[in-house]
Amino acid sequence: MRIGILGGGQLARMLALAGYPLGFTFRCLDPAEDPCAADLIPHIRGNWDDPEALRTFVDGVDMVTFETENIPLQALDCLESWGVPFHPGREALQVTQDRLLEKTYLRDCGFQTAPFASVSSLDEARHAAASIHYPVILKTRRFGYDGKGQKVARNSTELEAGFNALQGQDLLLEGYVSFEAEGSLIAVRDKKGHIQFYPLIHNEHRKGILYRSEPWIAAGTLERSAREAMKTLMEKMGYVGTMTLEFFSSHGRLIANELAPRVHNSGHWTIDAAVTCQFENHLRAITGLPLGSVASQAKYCMLNVIGQMPPRSEVLKIAAARLHDYHKAPAPGRKLGHITLVSDDQQEIEQGWQDMLAFYQP
Amino acid sequence: MRIGILGGGQLARMLALAGYPLGFTFRCLDPAEDPCAADLIPHIRGNWDDPEALRTFVDGVDMVTFETENIPLQALDCLESWGVPFHPGREALQVTQDRLLEKTYLRDCGFQTAPFASVSSLDEARHAAASIHYPVILKTRRFGYDGKGQKVARNSTELEAGFNALQGQDLLLEGYVSFEAEGSLIAVRDKKGHIQFYPLIHNEHRKGILYRSEPWIAAGTLERSAREAMKTLMEKMGYVGTMTLEFFSSHGRLIANELAPRVHNSGHWTIDAAVTCQFENHLRAITGLPLGSVASQAKYCMLNVIGQMPPRSEVLKIAAARLHDYHKAPAPGRKLGHITLVSDDQQEIEQGWQDMLAFYQP
Repeated sequence: MRIGILGGGQLARMLALAGYPLGFTFRCLDPAEDPCAADLIPHIRGNWDDPEALRTFVDGVDMVTFETENIPLQALDCLESWGVPFHPGREALQVTQDRLLEKTYLRDCGFQTAPFASVSSLDEARHAAASIHYPVILKTRRFGYDGKGQKVARNSTELEAGFNALQGQDLLLEGYVSFEAEGSLIAVRDKKGHIQFYPLIHNEHRKGILYRSEPWIAAGTLERSAREAMKTLMEKMGYVGTMTLEFFSSHGRLIANELAPRVHNSGHWTIDAAVTCQFENHLRAITGLPLGSVASQAKYCMLNVIGQMPPRSEVLKIAAARLHDYHKAPAPGRKLGHITLVSDDQQEIEQGWQDMLAFYQP
Repeated sequence: MRIGILGGGQLARMLALAGYPLGFTFRCLDPAEDPCAADLIPHIRGNWDDPEALRTFVDGVDMVTFETENIPLQALDCLESWGVPFHPGREALQVTQDRLLEKTYLRDCGFQTAPFASVSSLDEARHAAASIHYPVILKTRRFGYDGKGQKVARNSTELEAGFNALQGQDLLLEGYVSFEAEGSLIAVRDKKGHIQFYPLIHNEHRKGILYRSEPWIAAGTLERSAREAMKTLMEKMGYVGTMTLEFFSSHGRLIANELAPRVHNSGHWTIDAAVTCQFENHLRAITGLPLGSVASQAKYCMLNVIGQMPPRSEVLKIAAARLHDYHKAPAPGRKLGHITLVSDDQQEIEQGWQDMLAFYQP
């Protein structure tokens, strides 16, 4: 079975690494000249909304999936008209491409969210901010990630500046959630409707980019309610594949923030420390295979490598370190790889972390 | 760093799967039209002793390794003349391509071996057999694997038949070792001379092909003496990379049988159950990186898939099963993949084995 992946970045790369042992082959469509997945899967260069490129891409492909939610819906129109199956489905893309739809969907499925309102003028923004209370965040409804397309406003002046910076795009105004911690919940649902949940992850961001993920300690009630709402959501969506919810913990309550209809950076630890990683389970789900266990096999902590790779030999001297180099050109703010520290012994993980900071400060 | 692999079979495939996360890229040279490694690494089609094909293959490659010991030494001549580094070295290929040299080398390094003699005529064979005692095995000195190029003789008549079948080739006559068990020892040595040993493996063959590998129980003395001799051998050879010794256990003693200067089928369990697999450690060794831990993380048992793949969905229903499909065309006697059963609980492995036999009898 050949699986087409829309997108050729590190997620496509890791999908392929997980999928080759299952006997699958792959192909990706990506506008970049040399995306990092092209090291190991054939790459068609083209835009996702270019019917000709899509046509070449799907020729001989049995099904399609994607590594980013920023796939134009026109691409799905083409796939549908040609009878090429794809997972996750259209609704997952529609909802996650639009922050207003997404927040509404989350709320309707039982998640708590920050207060939010759609705004199309500065006046509307001012009224919404007054009712929600400052500080607020102005966000573009579409195509924002890693903190892009967002402006925090603590007062009316900042709101106006933010609105001017983002105007011309559909906007959403949200109440600012003061939170103790950020986390994510990764779930996978197969074609028969079975759902598995990876353990809750605690995430630390720096400059809007995920920096460090590790197990969420003492998650009991929070985790149960999150799983319940996630199940509702995935069933409502008829979702098939791996899906990620990013959330805040605020005064002990879970505030749902964003959905990713795909494998997720905060789940990269599963490659080294879960029985079945998020990538393999995504592929199992979309190809109609039974899901594998999502249990953790050890303690872990994942560090993103951003901007510049640390020396490979230094990383590999650390017994607990597992290196994942995406083979990308260095650039400020670019995710180049990740390192997972894995051990049965939390002390060894802490030590590995300290050892790493000696030669690498991201 | 781009690593060239001579050979494009499943071992090259698994080397690439282990090496991509380290940031390496690959290329293989293989005479087959579509070897299974070509799914994920660029493939140059050509013979290993064809200087033109080799020239194309090494262009832009930083170093070369191999997945088979059947690489003609002329290929190494070319690499040397062009200044392309390769590991393991020439001596490893020379010794393992010739059963007489190999047995002599093993003995000289402190291993016990079956009694053996070089024979070039039927008369010599008869004399050697009389001194070694029947049953004996006639073997071609060169290019035999998986039981090919071997004839067992229980008496003079069978010896003559065997000699006639194999004649024209350089031959070796060996005493037949009556053994309780077969096993292997996989070691890896880095450029600084550090050596790591994977735990001893118990191997079961059927029709001369490896069928099942699992941990060797109660290996104490046997393992210590094997490691000692293996260390002597690797140091004498200046070996860099993963190396495998296949042996018999006969009356509790280890009888060294064959060396493979490469990753080995009996070490495939390391992908799923060792901290660092034999493939990654081979790559770490030959690129001058520090070795990773070879400790087992769980109990395991590996089954080769021969001739025909079992249904993927049935295999993946078994919680302990990890599937490795090499994406090869089915053919009688062909290794198509392997399945590793992994669990902390030996009972779950046994149960997985039983479940598997219900739909798959290799």
